[in-house]
Amino acid sequence: MAKHEYQAPRGTTDLLPEAVALHAAVEERGRSLFEAYGYREIRTPLFEETRLFNRSIGEVTDVVEKEMFTVQRGGESSYSFRPEGTASVVRAYLEHDFPKRSPFQKFYYIGPMFRYEKPQKGRMRQFSQLGIEALGARDPRLDAEVIQVAMLFFARLGLEGLTARINSIGDREDRDRFRAVLKEWFRPRLERLCPLCRERYDRNVFRILDCKVESCREQRQGVPTFLEHISPESGDHFAAVQQSLELLDCPYRVDPGIVRGFDYYTHTVFEIPYERLGARSALCGGGRYDDLIQDLGGPSLGSIGFSIGMVPTLIALEMEGGTAGLVPPHRPDAFLIGLGRKAGDRAFRLADELRRQGLTILFDYQGKGLRAQLKLAARSGCRAAVILGEEELARGAATVRDLDRSEEQPVAFPELEERLVALRRAEGRDR
Amino acid sequence: MAKHEYQAPRGTTDLLPEAVALHAAVEERGRSLFEAYGYREIRTPLFEETRLFNRSIGEVTDVVEKEMFTVQRGGESSYSFRPEGTASVVRAYLEHDFPKRSPFQKFYYIGPMFRYEKPQKGRMRQFSQLGIEALGARDPRLDAEVIQVAMLFFARLGLEGLTARINSIGDREDRDRFRAVLKEWFRPRLERLCPLCRERYDRNVFRILDCKVESCREQRQGVPTFLEHISPESGDHFAAVQQSLELLDCPYRVDPGIVRGFDYYTHTVFEIPYERLGARSALCGGGRYDDLIQDLGGPSLGSIGFSIGMVPTLIALEMEGGTAGLVPPHRPDAFLIGLGRKAGDRAFRLADELRRQGLTILFDYQGKGLRAQLKLAARSGCRAAVILGEEELARGAATVRDLDRSEEQPVAFPELEERLVALRRAEGRDR
Repeated sequence: MAKHEYQAPRGTTDLLPEAVALHAAVEERGRSLFEAYGYREIRTPLFEETRLFNRSIGEVTDVVEKEMFTVQRGGESSYSFRPEGTASVVRAYLEHDFPKRSPFQKFYYIGPMFRYEKPQKGRMRQFSQLGIEALGARDPRLDAEVIQVAMLFFARLGLEGLTARINSIGDREDRDRFRAVLKEWFRPRLERLCPLCRERYDRNVFRILDCKVESCREQRQGVPTFLEHISPESGDHFAAVQQSLELLDCPYRVDPGIVRGFDYYTHTVFEIPYERLGARSALCGGGRYDDLIQDLGGPSLGSIGFSIGMVPTLIALEMEGGTAGLVPPHRPDAFLIGLGRKAGDRAFRLADELRRQGLTILFDYQGKGLRAQLKLAARSGCRAAVILGEEELARGAATVRDLDRSEEQPVAFPELEERLVALRRAEGRDR
Repeated sequence: MAKHEYQAPRGTTDLLPEAVALHAAVEERGRSLFEAYGYREIRTPLFEETRLFNRSIGEVTDVVEKEMFTVQRGGESSYSFRPEGTASVVRAYLEHDFPKRSPFQKFYYIGPMFRYEKPQKGRMRQFSQLGIEALGARDPRLDAEVIQVAMLFFARLGLEGLTARINSIGDREDRDRFRAVLKEWFRPRLERLCPLCRERYDRNVFRILDCKVESCREQRQGVPTFLEHISPESGDHFAAVQQSLELLDCPYRVDPGIVRGFDYYTHTVFEIPYERLGARSALCGGGRYDDLIQDLGGPSLGSIGFSIGMVPTLIALEMEGGTAGLVPPHRPDAFLIGLGRKAGDRAFRLADELRRQGLTILFDYQGKGLRAQLKLAARSGCRAAVILGEEELARGAATVRDLDRSEEQPVAFPELEERLVALRRAEGRDR
């Protein structure tokens, strides 16, 4: 029998306060960086009509075929919880008439995505992503900007020395042409590919290019690349992207193995791997999707974006020396302790007054004695304990114990706030 | 035909950046208040095993019977997206062994809830709530604290003059006793109740007490109240709650009509209405759930919490004079304009440098001319335009135009950051 009668669903986790603080710190660094680059937050619903994902991600992808949380009720549309962030942002961009109002828009999102996968290490059914989307422009410098933002995100968290892997998969015509070339090339090698790749051959031959299975890697020796087969115009765009990355001193490497799994990608695609993570090493993936706005009913406008995985990022940070530096320790200002009925009432009121002034005050509701409360105060990281007994009540001054220094002194009630703020300041951080 | 081929699902809305800023401002006020009172953020998965909600909210409630987004796949548990926040928090509290480790815990959550309702005004299928949960204590002062936190939340947003409506529905035995009393009383009046209440008579007779239909209100003249039928012990608890609310100067009124719709509630229940909203006027609802921890497999420990509806709160704020004061206007520091190829490259790099220093810089990727870019800069709320043409490149100084004052002056490249920061400061807000 399970230890607990009710548990979090498979492939999900609870974030308790310490973990929330870490996530929030990472999110905050993303926010300030994205805002500096002119991106603003958008929040779309967490579910959409299923057909939106079919049309954008593509019907013949694992995500759409097998991995969506889909709810269908008689007479109503089929809805699916979003497996990724781009489709919803483009849908919102069109629905709110941005192509007419102001076609160039920069959005970012931070939030949960859902994939009904077989849970396994590194694959969760609910997982958090940070992403940016720049819609309405084809300028290759924008590709470089987007890649630069991702690289700076990691650098600011302390993940130095990363290299963006970039590739171009051209436009739709380039892809149709190259698909035929690839099929021709893999046909005589089909038997020696892994079972999944044999399936991919018919469904989506490009995915064979980034299969991580060793035997497939071997079979790919000398495989034709997108870059050899894209049109001169597509090649020019990709060359300009590289020049722009150099202008920005952004470390990158051209990697013909970068393919990305969704149908909407065109031209520049990229990943930022953290090598020590092994096969599933991408912390970030993204690319252009120059046909998607039109595919969803809008005008022909180019766009590019990325998404960053919160969990891979945190795993990389742990491997790189830990995440402790990202979050200051949680330190409530004081534990307020009332002894006896009358002082207890006064303490209850006083706690409320100090909290209204913005101080973080803990208070016992479990009927614990002085020693137990002091223990709880220390364990909770409180800077001070404020003690109120009959004696303190009589003299109009509480006993304030500095829990870091184990020093005590009386402080008149009206001066409590000042004293606690001083303690906080002494620690060198004033919120 | 719909104007757009793809639209947000019924009962959902997109939050565009201006709306996100407003939501984030309200959330931030909640956060700082909750933290002052010792609550810390918890993030549970957005879906749970369906049976968790059946057991906690109750099988015979509209929410569980009809309104959940439920996904069931062969062989696996049935999962439902959370229709409210309490059940998941209690599940997590048990799963992470808090009853043994440290039974008194205070959590808050901010996030989306999902109910597959018929969409109508004020009822969304995805809606945001802020909630707090204080688990592991039965102290009536805790009830007062929780109600006080909700009241202060609204006061800080500028919603003054609210009164908490409180009631006690006693413990399970009290409820069983009172259920029989109520059924007896309503039996001869059944014909004159609304159709929904006739159904409620068998399913959940308590809900007749808060039916908003006028004829049902009339039929309730002289109806027995919980308060007349709860045990002396339950009555003592409720009296102590009221004394504690008075200690905190928290405006409240006893209202026997407050019932709450979920099975897990016990003893103190409360709502905070905004009268001008009419029938569905509750901005906040909550109460004790002293049996829930045990019902879900844990020890017998009392708990209390509330949830606040983001949308009703924003509607009330709009009626109360608007929300403009909550969010400062969005003002990027500058629009960086490069004219011609060479200056354009320099501008692109310069934009990146300034952004790295934390300034919010917009940049054109649409190939617009000077006038069009200046127009866009003004429309985007930029404080300044920074212009770089061949002339500026030659003299090593950009032209900085203060867009509020329409003044121009040359600023040497290395001094640009300082100048833009000065403009920001001059406006009286330094982020």
